Amino acid sequence: MPKTIAAFGEVMMRLQVPGYDLLTQASTLNYSFSGTGVNVASALARFGHTGALVTRLPVGPLGDAAAAYLRKLGIEAEADFVLRGGNYLGLYFLENGFGARPSRVTYTNRLESSFNTAPEGTYDFDRIAASVDAVHFCGITLAMNDGVRSHMKNLANAVKSLGGKVIFDCNFRPSLWGEKGHNAAKPHYEEMLELADIVFMNEKDAMFTLGMGTSAEGREERLAELIPAVAKQYEISTIAGTHRDIHGDNSHSLRGFLFKEGHFTHSERLRFSVYDRIGAGDAFASGIIHGELEQFEPERTVNFAAVAGMLAHTVAGDTPMASEGDVIRAMENSIGDVER
Amino acid sequence: MPKTIAAFGEVMMRLQVPGYDLLTQASTLNYSFSGTGVNVASALARFGHTGALVTRLPVGPLGDAAAAYLRKLGIEAEADFVLRGGNYLGLYFLENGFGARPSRVTYTNRLESSFNTAPEGTYDFDRIAASVDAVHFCGITLAMNDGVRSHMKNLANAVKSLGGKVIFDCNFRPSLWGEKGHNAAKPHYEEMLELADIVFMNEKDAMFTLGMGTSAEGREERLAELIPAVAKQYEISTIAGTHRDIHGDNSHSLRGFLFKEGHFTHSERLRFSVYDRIGAGDAFASGIIHGELEQFEPERTVNFAAVAGMLAHTVAGDTPMASEGDVIRAMENSIGDVER
Amino acid sequence: MPKTIAAFGEVMMRLQVPGYDLLTQASTLNYSFSGTGVNVASALARFGHTGALVTRLPVGPLGDAAAAYLRKLGIEAEADFVLRGGNYLGLYFLENGFGARPSRVTYTNRLESSFNTAPEGTYDFDRIAASVDAVHFCGITLAMNDGVRSHMKNLANAVKSLGGKVIFDCNFRPSLWGEKGHNAAKPHYEEMLELADIVFMNEKDAMFTLGMGTSAEGREERLAELIPAVAKQYEISTIAGTHRDIHGDNSHSLRGFLFKEGHFTHSERLRFSVYDRIGAGDAFASGIIHGELEQFEPERTVNFAAVAGMLAHTVAGDTPMASEGDVIRAMENSIGDVER
Amino acid sequence: MPKTIAAFGEVMMRLQVPGYDLLTQASTLNYSFSGTGVNVASALARFGHTGALVTRLPVGPLGDAAAAYLRKLGIEAEADFVLRGGNYLGLYFLENGFGARPSRVTYTNRLESSFNTAPEGTYDFDRIAASVDAVHFCGITLAMNDGVRSHMKNLANAVKSLGGKVIFDCNFRPSLWGEKGHNAAKPHYEEMLELADIVFMNEKDAMFTLGMGTSAEGREERLAELIPAVAKQYEISTIAGTHRDIHGDNSHSLRGFLFKEGHFTHSERLRFSVYDRIGAGDAFASGIIHGELEQFEPERTVNFAAVAGMLAHTVAGDTPMASEGDVIRAMENSIGDVER
Amino acid sequence: MPKTIAAFGEVMMRLQVPGYDLLTQASTLNYSFSGTGVNVASALARFGHTGALVTRLPVGPLGDAAAAYLRKLGIEAEADFVLRGGNYLGLYFLENGFGARPSRVTYTNRLESSFNTAPEGTYDFDRIAASVDAVHFCGITLAMNDGVRSHMKNLANAVKSLGGKVIFDCNFRPSLWGEKGHNAAKPHYEEMLELADIVFMNEKDAMFTLGMGTSAEGREERLAELIPAVAKQYEISTIAGTHRDIHGDNSHSLRGFLFKEGHFTHSERLRFSVYDRIGAGDAFASGIIHGELEQFEPERTVNFAAVAGMLAHTVAGDTPMASEGDVIRAMENSIGDVER
Amino acid sequence: MPKTIAAFGEVMMRLQVPGYDLLTQASTLNYSFSGTGVNVASALARFGHTGALVTRLPVGPLGDAAAAYLRKLGIEAEADFVLRGGNYLGLYFLENGFGARPSRVTYTNRLESSFNTAPEGTYDFDRIAASVDAVHFCGITLAMNDGVRSHMKNLANAVKSLGGKVIFDCNFRPSLWGEKGHNAAKPHYEEMLELADIVFMNEKDAMFTLGMGTSAEGREERLAELIPAVAKQYEISTIAGTHRDIHGDNSHSLRGFLFKEGHFTHSERLRFSVYDRIGAGDAFASGIIHGELEQFEPERTVNFAAVAGMLAHTVAGDTPMASEGDVIRAMENSIGDVER
Repeated sequence: MPKTIAAFGEVMMRLQVPGYDLLTQASTLNYSFSGTGVNVASALARFGHTGALVTRLPVGPLGDAAAAYLRKLGIEAEADFVLRGGNYLGLYFLENGFGARPSRVTYTNRLESSFNTAPEGTYDFDRIAASVDAVHFCGITLAMNDGVRSHMKNLANAVKSLGGKVIFDCNFRPSLWGEKGHNAAKPHYEEMLELADIVFMNEKDAMFTLGMGTSAEGREERLAELIPAVAKQYEISTIAGTHRDIHGDNSHSLRGFLFKEGHFTHSERLRFSVYDRIGAGDAFASGIIHGELEQFEPERTVNFAAVAGMLAHTVAGDTPMASEGDVIRAMENSIGDVER
Repeated sequence: MPKTIAAFGEVMMRLQVPGYDLLTQASTLNYSFSGTGVNVASALARFGHTGALVTRLPVGPLGDAAAAYLRKLGIEAEADFVLRGGNYLGLYFLENGFGARPSRVTYTNRLESSFNTAPEGTYDFDRIAASVDAVHFCGITLAMNDGVRSHMKNLANAVKSLGGKVIFDCNFRPSLWGEKGHNAAKPHYEEMLELADIVFMNEKDAMFTLGMGTSAEGREERLAELIPAVAKQYEISTIAGTHRDIHGDNSHSLRGFLFKEGHFTHSERLRFSVYDRIGAGDAFASGIIHGELEQFEPERTVNFAAVAGMLAHTVAGDTPMASEGDVIRAMENSIGDVER
Repeated sequence: MPKTIAAFGEVMMRLQVPGYDLLTQASTLNYSFSGTGVNVASALARFGHTGALVTRLPVGPLGDAAAAYLRKLGIEAEADFVLRGGNYLGLYFLENGFGARPSRVTYTNRLESSFNTAPEGTYDFDRIAASVDAVHFCGITLAMNDGVRSHMKNLANAVKSLGGKVIFDCNFRPSLWGEKGHNAAKPHYEEMLELADIVFMNEKDAMFTLGMGTSAEGREERLAELIPAVAKQYEISTIAGTHRDIHGDNSHSLRGFLFKEGHFTHSERLRFSVYDRIGAGDAFASGIIHGELEQFEPERTVNFAAVAGMLAHTVAGDTPMASEGDVIRAMENSIGDVER
Repeated sequence: MPKTIAAFGEVMMRLQVPGYDLLTQASTLNYSFSGTGVNVASALARFGHTGALVTRLPVGPLGDAAAAYLRKLGIEAEADFVLRGGNYLGLYFLENGFGARPSRVTYTNRLESSFNTAPEGTYDFDRIAASVDAVHFCGITLAMNDGVRSHMKNLANAVKSLGGKVIFDCNFRPSLWGEKGHNAAKPHYEEMLELADIVFMNEKDAMFTLGMGTSAEGREERLAELIPAVAKQYEISTIAGTHRDIHGDNSHSLRGFLFKEGHFTHSERLRFSVYDRIGAGDAFASGIIHGELEQFEPERTVNFAAVAGMLAHTVAGDTPMASEGDVIRAMENSIGDVER
Repeated sequence: MPKTIAAFGEVMMRLQVPGYDLLTQASTLNYSFSGTGVNVASALARFGHTGALVTRLPVGPLGDAAAAYLRKLGIEAEADFVLRGGNYLGLYFLENGFGARPSRVTYTNRLESSFNTAPEGTYDFDRIAASVDAVHFCGITLAMNDGVRSHMKNLANAVKSLGGKVIFDCNFRPSLWGEKGHNAAKPHYEEMLELADIVFMNEKDAMFTLGMGTSAEGREERLAELIPAVAKQYEISTIAGTHRDIHGDNSHSLRGFLFKEGHFTHSERLRFSVYDRIGAGDAFASGIIHGELEQFEPERTVNFAAVAGMLAHTVAGDTPMASEGDVIRAMENSIGDVER
Repeated sequence: MPKTIAAFGEVMMRLQVPGYDLLTQASTLNYSFSGTGVNVASALARFGHTGALVTRLPVGPLGDAAAAYLRKLGIEAEADFVLRGGNYLGLYFLENGFGARPSRVTYTNRLESSFNTAPEGTYDFDRIAASVDAVHFCGITLAMNDGVRSHMKNLANAVKSLGGKVIFDCNFRPSLWGEKGHNAAKPHYEEMLELADIVFMNEKDAMFTLGMGTSAEGREERLAELIPAVAKQYEISTIAGTHRDIHGDNSHSLRGFLFKEGHFTHSERLRFSVYDRIGAGDAFASGIIHGELEQFEPERTVNFAAVAGMLAHTVAGDTPMASEGDVIRAMENSIGDVER
């Protein structure tokens, strides 16, 4: 049965140099609007749910363009959720890498954005909480500033108190936390983990952000040791995440895991060509959320999520475009010829 | 010595989303005009023959644009062959797949096209037959409706009665035959096979369309058993076809065969990167026709055809662009550096 | 106070040759989705109302792209209104004229579209009628076929019976009615006029479609004589329309009228440069509907509508993009410098 | 009754900066292939004749692209007419002007082109002459070098001796004749005029190239005095030409004349917006040739030609795109609304 | 004799929606880098001088792209002038208006830009002053913040003390000065006027920014009264400016004045079509500076400047592209045909 | 410590068909300006040096565009180095290959270019030599004509006599030397080798151009035998070069060597995906020059050069875009994820 899930997060304008040119070489940019919350709400809408976004956009042409784009993605963007106010929209420039040359992302001053400067009292959290089954947050938002963190925690509490589920994606970006890095982040992460029912992370988050020790050596071994410890310590019912390998020939490998009721379930290890890497983690997360809300078997959930993640690497833009049907077809089929 | 070959078939407008975007993401389309007959006539023109197309285009801007495009491809598009009448042009939308995401083709209602609604008496088959050495048909055209099938058979008979060669590509598209599928198709295929001198097919056509049984298990074994049986039953002098494998890294493998005078000749198995898959089968067929008309040795014919097929995967659009010289250079060379 | 207005009509794909090229010259097309209903619903949404569209789109990539486009335009496209079914989307090609060379529109076979083949019982008219304040129809839809006409009349009756307003734009396209033309159309127009509260037309519709005689000679004189007669005969409370002049220098003149409670009110005569002429009539109609629903003074209504019509000529695409604020600013200002 | 007309002339590649950018600002170019002969042959094909081009193109990708482009334009480009040989294609860069800023054309070294280096004996003039009703030359070609001039005169003589018509467009480009200018040109012009049946020129050609004196003062007066004198001196049966005025608002005025059997006939003076000015003179010439070959009344001929010239200003590229029907519709109509 | 002129000012990234689309309609942007200082330095380089820019750009891809763009424009961008530091580049979005719909500019938070956050001591003003003949400032820069104003005044003093000329363009942008507007601005303007040798302004600046009273009524009369008063009060040797009228048909009129040694000299009143309005004032200013530095007669100076201003409306982008030769040709010629 | 290096060579306009289309399929071209000298000067500028180009460009729009492009690349393009004169710019068309289909380059007649027709006395070699630390030449320039060869040798002698280093890249292009090929080239190559301090070549140049015999069989063995012999015979202090392998999957392998003071040093063998192959050899050469001028250890030099070469395959255009920092990061890292 379809659910209503709200994601709380910033909408950013993505300004991408076409093809593989650098900013010094080109003269045009492709633009779209994205963000972790956008990606998750849109993916869940494509899986048959109502995916809403709780955010704040500036008044004026940029805010209008962003709102229109959200609606096009199928996101519930009614005025209760998508507020208008403040002056600026965060934006980032993307230069696609090729082979040995990595992609580069250059942010403009997002801290002054409408979202990141929303004053206390901007959102009516009780009303939002009353209309949703679950709410999604991520570590990028958590890195912004105290005002945003306060919104996050208030919304999480409001949803939790009405029986909704709280979802948290750890998503640690070192450049956003400044010099103190993990130390600055840890207390805020802990607060969110204590509120959360479903958490996205892997062993690195446990080690570096939460500072948990391990004597295990391999990536898999550390995961097996640390994830159950996190689940126990913060009383989290579901933890999921991925291990990714990047190969030299423009392909990646991805293997997802789901830890639930004391057991790990792993997806198949998928290897695939990559067209647009950004946002693929959000597709995996959306797949897990879908499986959990629809009460799939763990194996189906984690494979659905991994394939959703894989497909998100095959479309342009940050935002996953695959429907539930597309994911299921890809789970069932090997690589196919033209569909006519 | 150059020959004149007419292909009978529909011209469709191909509307392709640029790059790897979906129709919901993009706002522009690239268009061109193609069809099996277009591809074969154009390829044969590039191999030095006169490649004509027998078809019917609507009056008006779309028909004008299609006719100009045919001329640009080097197709003989004089008024005896390319008639103008009726109202519509069939068209299809193409969204390119990437890696694990397959390409998607969406047709519009082609059954109302000028070609598919051409009344009896539209074409002057005797005049056409008098001016060609061979005529090419395909299974896609055969799937359209009784009117078109009647045109096909009349033209085939007219050419045969004047001593020209009849070429038939089995080319079965399940979605065009409706629920009854192979059963509906079989009698029409049999009529065409009985008229044909050169046929393109492989063991699947024998098994599924013609309903021939086999106890062999592998693809190669079934081919070895069934193709001679087809040749015998329908008195076909030459049968050719390919086996294709699709790999995960955006490459395909292709191996062609030619069955003639009781013997199979196989091409080398070629593996290559794919840029545009559509229409590559027509390039292989054109290579076989060229070899047969020019009386190449079977080994040269089948290798020429396989390399022509391979090269057709490396250019945009449905229509092969390689000249005879390009094919021969590619047969002789390994992958090379820039040609200056 | 914002209202909810549903427009009933077909969504078509517009495939426009960029710039001023012909189809035979170019190789790309810009696409968007439009239709009278789309234009009116979108314009009313920009004026602060809920603009819904009652239509039927095919399943598959074209229907998905159309639905996403409608949402982007701000149209209420929930599943009660925008149904999915059938196979095809109507589409048209547009070649922009320049100066002495007129624009050309080439339609494909729209009669097979999902909208035009929707069977009886497709729409839940009672449910739709219960959720709207007004419903909009146009003469283009009326020209399609008996099935569509039956839907129109059923929906008009359902809305009327629940106290909603019925709006009808006469919009006569000769090419759609075949040889019998006005004679074939007249009875259907009369049925719609009898149901309608607000009607868009001018003296030509009265003379040619309704066959009303006049001895007046000038355009204005005929308007003054015939519009009151139409209002009386069909008991229509509001009739509005425009007179347009096309000048040689890429500019048009437009003057709107509003006939209501026995009186004519005329807008100023506006002269302006034209960027995209298609859909501007729908902007005028939307302005009248907005004024009527918001109970503006007649003079404000007709001037708002004329300026909305003028602005619609200044943006690309069929669909008006001006907000209520944009129209009011343009009513107040003379032509201005850059807005920074 | 349709005729076969060959034009003798160079094919050049036109490399146009898109929109109104300068070469220093942009990074892309639109390319096409044109030339006076191309334009005339293509226009006559659109008027229902067989328009052939006698020229020489290089072997290789540029020659292939040019040949395909000629075919697309509807030009008869069979191997008897369009020869392949030599190494280079002439090309020119075009930066569109805007308002007070004029367009700029920059040529590359065309003297080394395949056409301009074709050795004696390249063309089989007798065979060409045997298959055409008329042949067209222009003053640009005459300016190239002695080899090309020799080809011109041989072809003109061959056609004349078989009873075909010789057409010559005076078309003087000062930059091509170097310092001696008109003096260098005069003897060559006189040779062509003596061979010609139909000539395009106006009073300036008579005064500057042929060095004829006049005491008349106005443009019209000089025309009236000099054109009959030219016709008499060189025994030319038909002389036609235009007077053009360039206005500040991106519009031009054009008035054509036709002098024949001792009488002048003038077209209406047309004023129109200009989209692409290059090649419009060739459209006028083609209109005159069409009228003469079809034996129109002089008034119809000169008006047909003037409207054909006007329409050529409304499409991109050097080459006229209007069919005979398009010209006739534009002769009959005032500026119209969208054609649906 | 060529001079070296430095302009002090911010470089902004201009992100323009192509054609006439709105941000909500399009998906690509054209980008370039501009600013009053950029425009003036580039124009002076095209007039044969060394045009340098004193500014600060961020480290990273955006700063690299901006620096490359400045070099391409011909601006002296050596490390003494164009410093690298700070994090952000100011940027603005431009939606082109059409006819009755005005252009819209949307700024992002430029106050955090590298230029506007440059700390004291960033620039080595003595070294800069030692290498230039003149320095240019504008009122937009003056509106930024105290830090920037301090840089301006220090640089002006440094240049003045070494005998260089100080140029100031009043350029008042209300939106940048906040609520207090002219009152906040006046003291800063007065400081700059006292330092300046050449000033760009008109009567509105005198009235509104400087608060000078006048009883004159017409624009010309006020100019005649107030400009001499300003020159006297602030001891300015040269004041220049323009009066602009905006017409409905996409054309503007411009008339420049130059007040010097107690006398006004006016340019012709020019009327011209407008392609890109932004930056044209800087072209006028550059023309005046060029005339003054080269000691033209006042009449030549003001006409050169007005024509330079006119030509700047005919090219895309903020930055004038006309060379000295282009301006002189346009002063001499009427509107011409293609230049070949 | 940064040095000043001048490269002597022609600037060509590169006209590239976008994507993987052929010239017969497309209608737009991307253009840029390049050449071995351009590539080397630009790469060295990105490594922190002053990279100047000694060349001659035509007056007019093409020369202006080329000069602006050079400045954008960061090349020192002052009037002492980049002269203006002559009429033409050499240009070449590039059709990108895909997989089994090789790229094609079609040159226009570059022999008439401004560079290749520069008369004796064009350049002030003494002044140039006085301002540089090193000068770079290549075998492509050497193939042009006697005039250019004379310039090369004069400049090399001038630099050498002032103590600067002479660098020569053997770069043999068979198509430029005509039928006599290596025999025609040998004496000119020998002259340059005798002047050179740093030479780029491999064993093929020794065998084919210099005609040196070897009984060794493998590529490596021949290199080991012949390079020391060349160094000895021509008294060259440093010789460097690469061995390249081209793989079927759009990847190449590259291994560089540096022979100096009697010892070979080899880089790691790098395998990488290729985006744009042209110009990558110049990136390798620039890396060697940088290492030599900065007196890196041989191992660091050759690995820096090989990685610089690898990165040049990952950007569009002939000209390397990697900074010294980019190369060092790529030397240190394995293939990475997005850099944010």
